[in-house]
Order: sequence, then structure tokens, then C-alpha cells
Amino acid sequence: MEPVSLPPQSRVALCGGTHGNEMSGVYLVRELQKLEKVGSATLTTVISNPRAVQMCKRYTDVDLNRCFTDAILSSPVTDATPYEVRRAQELNTLLGPKGSAGAMDLVCDLHNTTANMGLSLISYSAQDWVILHIYRQIQVSRVSIQLNQMRVKDKVKLIQDLIFETTSASIEVGPQPHGVVRADIFNIMKECFNSGGEVDDVYTFVKSIDYPRDPETNQITAAIHPQLQDRDFCLLHPGDPMFLMFSGEIVKYEGVEVLHPYFVNECAYYEKSIAFHLARKMTLTIPPLRVKRD
Amino acid sequence: MEPVSLPPQSRVALCGGTHGNEMSGVYLVRELQKLEKVGSATLTTVISNPRAVQMCKRYTDVDLNRCFTDAILSSPVTDATPYEVRRAQELNTLLGPKGSAGAMDLVCDLHNTTANMGLSLISYSAQDWVILHIYRQIQVSRVSIQLNQMRVKDKVKLIQDLIFETTSASIEVGPQPHGVVRADIFNIMKECFNSGGEVDDVYTFVKSIDYPRDPETNQITAAIHPQLQDRDFCLLHPGDPMFLMFSGEIVKYEGVEVLHPYFVNECAYYEKSIAFHLARKMTLTIPPLRVKRD
Repeated sequence: MEPVSLPPQSRVALCGGTHGNEMSGVYLVRELQKLEKVGSATLTTVISNPRAVQMCKRYTDVDLNRCFTDAILSSPVTDATPYEVRRAQELNTLLGPKGSAGAMDLVCDLHNTTANMGLSLISYSAQDWVILHIYRQIQVSRVSIQLNQMRVKDKVKLIQDLIFETTSASIEVGPQPHGVVRADIFNIMKECFNSGGEVDDVYTFVKSIDYPRDPETNQITAAIHPQLQDRDFCLLHPGDPMFLMFSGEIVKYEGVEVLHPYFVNECAYYEKSIAFHLARKMTLTIPPLRVKRD
Repeated sequence: MEPVSLPPQSRVALCGGTHGNEMSGVYLVRELQKLEKVGSATLTTVISNPRAVQMCKRYTDVDLNRCFTDAILSSPVTDATPYEVRRAQELNTLLGPKGSAGAMDLVCDLHNTTANMGLSLISYSAQDWVILHIYRQIQVSRVSIQLNQMRVKDKVKLIQDLIFETTSASIEVGPQPHGVVRADIFNIMKECFNSGGEVDDVYTFVKSIDYPRDPETNQITAAIHPQLQDRDFCLLHPGDPMFLMFSGEIVKYEGVEVLHPYFVNECAYYEKSIAFHLARKMTLTIPPLRVKRD
């Protein structure tokens, strides 16, 4: 495969608290802010949504992680502008502007999930070679903490989810309740920045599945089935149980394709009508990188 | 031991959503509201804090579960009265008034915790024989679901926590992130109402332990140590690790008495400056009950 030439990547930003109740990133950024210097790159650390962190909420007005579209970043600010829209524009000035010569080479955003996803890296572009190469460097063999019996994964997962229009890469670690910090989950995230490793497969978003709901009240009428709960990235076959109705019946997967569920029972996705995402597993060929010299 | 005579206990209230983001009770109450009749008792089902449930928050103004004191229940209502204070007075009218002839014989309040506490029953009086007898009837042998490797308990726990002044008994089931419903936790709570069993020991509240905090910012500087995380009701010995500082150091338990931690890493207790409670294990002798005939 032909090498790809890129300019040197020396300005790196690490963001925590984009969702104010996902605590590992908040505490890791605060901890790193106490240190002098990390490696040879210039590391900028940012608490993305300080007002939501202060309130220990995901967001105050709107979800900050959906505010990095070109349209929202260039929208005029009025008294009615939501806090997170103003904050997204501030962050774009601080870390960008997006696409400009002065922008960060890499923005890495730290998240937690209540899903049992272990250490997962979400890229929003299928051709962001820098991010893909960084993922390859994460030594997953060191992330050997077994959080519970059901955990089937022991290596980092790479997800390509093209529905967002952000420039950053996200690191998701779970399971951890929002508003809580667990030492094991904190250490997985900390370890992620102290080591290197390899990514074999890529999970590409296919579709979302919602909970069964009461047609009148729209309230959910089932929970994730115990055979699916905590089994992120396992195979979901046609006929496998998906939901256990509160009344006791089982709802099965009726799709025809074998797919991989992830973000299973993520707290913040109830309001987005998402019980879990389904992904197709792909093999990704990453080209060698060369540093471009002007 | 002398038998205790009590009037017949036929009016039972089951409350969910006292904390609006503790989902098992919310969904169980909604499910029971669809049924015709449960047993021979008259079962009143209530969503305690519908506004907080709607917002999927613990509370909107103040913690409803701290509003059932005589002082708050009899306080005059003004425009500035918090929503939960008004709601507590409504509930007192609906289910009480406390101590009156028309009051419910038993109010049972359903809760979730992010702590690994399994099925726990909290009584706020040391001499509420009715509640203690009901606890004895819960068949703990049926609650055999093993949620994860670290779980050491397989039977119901009884906690006497006299710091609240409510008339109700609380049922706590965890671990479950707030804002999430897990089928396994839902089923433990459901099973609790479909079976009977036995309670040997009582855990009596001794004191609370707060997280290590930065003296200037008051922000926490450590997480629960992995050797304590998920080990609710185990023994905490002097010298055992309690916290892992984000910087890496270990903070040990320096008390002199061996005690039992519970509510370890409960999300809602960060704002109350509680990392976990410590309890002393006691043996309780429960007198036989006789129904009092007028």
C-alpha cells in the first residue's frame, strides 16, 4: 500500500468532561494538569464543559458533543444561544479553528459509558490515518483487568461511527455509572496514555435499535435481555434474545445479518431512543505514514 | 421472648421513583399498576416523585427522601416551597397522615444503588417488628444471580439506619447505574415480592467516610480502592486499603474496629460527602407476632 505523507503531529489536545458526568476523563485531565510536560508533544488539557462538570450532568442545555458541526460553530450568538453552543465556539477558537493552520493536530476526547465496552476508540472518519496509527500503538496486552465474569473482550476496540461531524477522536471506557469514578476504569484510561498496542478489526456503525415502548405513553416496556447485557462486541445472531419485557416475555433479534452490538444499555441513550448500536466488523488496511517535510 | 400484639396489617403501599433516576422501582410499580390485585392485602402503588422521574433525575429541588420529618411535613406551603416538600405533604395525605388511624400499615419504598449491595432492606427503626418479620419472609435462597466475580453475598442484607425519620422501609438493589434499568436487578426486585426467606444479621450504621479531597478546591483526589470497590458488607480491617489516589498512592483504613462498609461508591452520595458507610454487625432477636383483635 502506498505511504501517505502527513505534516508532523506535535500539538495534541486532551479533553475531559465533554459530558459533565463522565468522571474518568474529568479526573484524568485534572491530574495531568498538575504535571509539567508529557513526552515531546505539546499537550493541551481542557475541561470541555465546566458548567456541566460543576453540576455533574451530561449537559446543561444541549449535548455539547453534537455541537461541533460547521453550521453550529458558525451560527451567530444571541441571548437565546444555548450554553453548550457558545462553549463549542470557544473550544473551536481554543483548539482550532477547524481546518485552519493553527488548529491542533489531534484532539482526543475522554468518555465513559455504562455499557460494558472496555476500552473503545471511536473515530469519526474512515480515513483519519493519524488517529488509526495512534490506535495501533496502544498496547492492549497491558489492559488485562477483568471487570466481571461476563467480559469477553480484553483488547481495545476501534469503532467508526460516521454520524457525528466532530474533528476529535473519542476514547470510551466502561462500564462505569455516570457521576461515579471507579479506580479500575480510571486506571484503564490512564494506562491507555502510558502504553502502546495494536488494533486488528474495526466495528462500523450499521444501525441503532430502540427499546420496546408503549405506543400510547412512549415509555419503555422492557430491559436489555440478560444474555445481551454486558456483552458488547459479541455476535448477535438472528433469533438471539434482545429484550426481556417487564411482563416476562422475550423479544428476539429478527434481523438477517449477524452483527455486533455496542453501547448496550448506555444511560444517556435512553433519551435518544437507542438501546444499543449494531456494527459490522471490518478489516482495515492502514497505509504506512511518512512525515511530510516542506 | 414475649409475643408482641399488633393490629392486622392489610393496607400496604409500594412506592417507586422516590429518587427519579432509580429505574427498577419505577418500572416495577408501573408493571404492578397493570395488574388487578396482589394477594389479600390492598396494595397501593405510587410513583413518589413523578416530576423527577419525568426528568430522570434524583430530585428537582431537594431530596424527597429527606422530606418526611414531622417538621417538614407540617411546614406551611408558600410560593417558595420546594417541589419535593409539597410532594412529601401530598404523599403524607395519600398514605398517612403519619401516625393516624387511616395511615397505611406498611410503606415499602424501592431504590437502586450504584454500590454492589445486592438486595438490601433498610429499616429506620430498631423496633419495627412488622417490617422485620416481613424481611424474615423473603426467601433469599432464590436470589442466586451472580452479577460479577467480586460479589460475595448471596442473601438479603438488613440495615438499620436511624439517621432518617421516615415511616417507610427501603429496599435497595444494586449495582445499577442511575438512569439505567438492568433486567437482572429488575428481576431481583421483582423476585423479592414473589417469595419469602430469612435474615440472620443486622448491619447498624456507625459512621460515614468521605473521599480524600483537595483542601483548596474541595474536589475529590482519589477513587475507592479496587480492593474495596464492589465489596459491600465485607470486613474492613485496620490497615486495609480504602482509597487509590489519582496520583497512585494508597490510603488505608486507620480505625481500630473491624467494620462492614456499605453504599460503597454510591453516585448520589458524592454531593453528600460520603464515599461509603460503615456498619457494625449485630444479631437481632425478633419477638413472635400476634394479631391483636379489638
